[in-house]
Amino acid sequence: MSFSFEILQRSADGARRGRLSTPHGAVETPAFFFCGTRGSVKGLSVQQLRACGTQGMLANTYHLHLRPGEETVATLGGLHAMMGWSGPLFTDSGGFQIFSLGHGGVAQEIKCRRSAGEPKTLLRISEEGAFFRSYVDGSLRTLTPESSIHIQKLLGADIVLPLDECTPYHVDRDYTARSLERSHRWELRSLAEFQRNSDGSQAPYGIVQGGVYEDLRKISCDFVSRQDFFGQAIGGSLGGDREEMERVVATVGRFLHPLRPTHLLGIGGVRDIFHGVRQGVDTFDCVHPTRMARHGGALLPNSLSEGTGHINLHSGRFARDREPIDRSCDCYACRTASRAYLHHLLRSRETLGGQLVTIHNVRFMNRLMEQIREAIGMNFLDRLEATYR
Amino acid sequence: MSFSFEILQRSADGARRGRLSTPHGAVETPAFFFCGTRGSVKGLSVQQLRACGTQGMLANTYHLHLRPGEETVATLGGLHAMMGWSGPLFTDSGGFQIFSLGHGGVAQEIKCRRSAGEPKTLLRISEEGAFFRSYVDGSLRTLTPESSIHIQKLLGADIVLPLDECTPYHVDRDYTARSLERSHRWELRSLAEFQRNSDGSQAPYGIVQGGVYEDLRKISCDFVSRQDFFGQAIGGSLGGDREEMERVVATVGRFLHPLRPTHLLGIGGVRDIFHGVRQGVDTFDCVHPTRMARHGGALLPNSLSEGTGHINLHSGRFARDREPIDRSCDCYACRTASRAYLHHLLRSRETLGGQLVTIHNVRFMNRLMEQIREAIGMNFLDRLEATYR
Repeated sequence: MSFSFEILQRSADGARRGRLSTPHGAVETPAFFFCGTRGSVKGLSVQQLRACGTQGMLANTYHLHLRPGEETVATLGGLHAMMGWSGPLFTDSGGFQIFSLGHGGVAQEIKCRRSAGEPKTLLRISEEGAFFRSYVDGSLRTLTPESSIHIQKLLGADIVLPLDECTPYHVDRDYTARSLERSHRWELRSLAEFQRNSDGSQAPYGIVQGGVYEDLRKISCDFVSRQDFFGQAIGGSLGGDREEMERVVATVGRFLHPLRPTHLLGIGGVRDIFHGVRQGVDTFDCVHPTRMARHGGALLPNSLSEGTGHINLHSGRFARDREPIDRSCDCYACRTASRAYLHHLLRSRETLGGQLVTIHNVRFMNRLMEQIREAIGMNFLDRLEATYR
Repeated sequence: MSFSFEILQRSADGARRGRLSTPHGAVETPAFFFCGTRGSVKGLSVQQLRACGTQGMLANTYHLHLRPGEETVATLGGLHAMMGWSGPLFTDSGGFQIFSLGHGGVAQEIKCRRSAGEPKTLLRISEEGAFFRSYVDGSLRTLTPESSIHIQKLLGADIVLPLDECTPYHVDRDYTARSLERSHRWELRSLAEFQRNSDGSQAPYGIVQGGVYEDLRKISCDFVSRQDFFGQAIGGSLGGDREEMERVVATVGRFLHPLRPTHLLGIGGVRDIFHGVRQGVDTFDCVHPTRMARHGGALLPNSLSEGTGHINLHSGRFARDREPIDRSCDCYACRTASRAYLHHLLRSRETLGGQLVTIHNVRFMNRLMEQIREAIGMNFLDRLEATYR
């Protein structure tokens, strides 16, 4: 029942293979964490997640605080027991949802996390914390660094995150700099609250902010590295396009603590994962693979999907396609269902359609990470990436 | 690759234990067939169905004819291959949906099969067949006894049903009698079409009509028994309340062919199953257990559900209930999820909630049938039924 992070191998291009140990078992890194937003990875049972080789999950403090509430989760023995998930688990601070729902802007596109149709609910941000309205019952709520940690302690995930302000892409350097200072003060308050009565069953990651400004990112990396965090997460705006994101992640990668496990929040594109891994990122999370699946998008290497990275099974071109999504995939969906059957289920609004495509996409991501881990050991990452191009 | 029905044991009260063999394996009877309306039992993979001890499925010719179409299903190797279901499979004739959508009335309540919100689409019934409008694309369609059999041959289920007119409860004796005569003529046409080029991979059941009129039911039983059907199904209106249904099923039970496998269409209540079994019914199907699950209704013996036969997990009284649905149930949901977690998932509109409750209800029905089979062998049915009261 303790935390550790070992770096097992490094490749010439900066990538590393490691092992992140938690009281709920170890994760071989680099690894992908699937979003169990409201306490379930949408449409899949834990048994199905396990069968796809899933190592870890990330649940959202914001949603779980509003429903069913952390007290209820604690009554049920914590998130692990409630969900029946016995493996490693992150919770975020709740900040991202509050701020992205409040700010609007492009953060949700970059982080691919925003649910469409939810009303803006952020009322005010102050030094104390954030004031917002519950989308469940309209009640007024406050989230402070202390209350976020308190909630996360009751939820009981292995790894917890401090409250930070997620600045959207369109704010200027000046706002970003002031926000960064406040986020740092919030991180210190979070850490103090965390350390009060910590029983060693959870570990905190710091979050690096600074938007697209390299000097601010360096300041933030230095700050977070100096604090007593077990790991570190890359948060905030990563820019308006892939080039800017790669630049920001590369900058941060240079200044982060070299021995701590590193999580890149909300990023899950194949190319972005290869890039992140080369900057030393160990873990990723994103709703993209599972959300895309529910809309009929099945992940495939570019070579099998006309360069797009997926096929849309809603399309009439698959109506009589007897092939599975991917002949080389060992997932339950690819072993049992044709593209035509998946097309039929999706067109007929049968939830089994989304469930089967989700199984494929989860397995796709887990296989990708398995291959990346193997490739790091063999200095082989470029050749592996070429097979996904 | 052949069909047979053996009666293995009889109990004093008229129930029988048997084995219905098909080219896709045998079903131990009495058994419950789950509705895979559009080619999937809503929300469950075949793997999950199997894990619940499911023996058989019934798919709807009407829905599959409209989408994806029987030609497409045939291209995919037939329904078994398309769905990945290697066990015994029924298809109905398509008639029930056409007539219940057209007539309205109470048939859908008795048979618990009608989807809410679908427009009335029946245009005309003639000696030739039924004329209706596709709910998928608005096109005009005809279903005749011959075309129904043709479609069902392409779908490739083990057991097929002839087209009949399903008269609703509110029609009078005179209409029912004339409709019965026409249904019989349609059954002869169906059988002739079936026998043309039959390769032995499918077997037909006749359908007994006659509404709530005992003399008409006797006429229909005699007629169906004389034809070369492999089995027999009880169709049509079973009356306006349980008492009337029990009377009709008991009447039919007396006059059916004593050695042929007997299916009771669209009935799935626990008490109705016990009653049907005593009248010699071997197999049942109904959407009730799976539909109820999607709305949060988990099946339980009356003694554990205040006499109602289910609990509604949407109810706030389960918000902190740490118990599984049923401590004595061995299903995946009961082994891993509390009522409170299921309540949370249902309230949060997470599809996993419906999926887990469906798993429980499927397992509940399969356990019920396992217990009934065991009880028949031991002349024990009354005592078993008492445990469900």
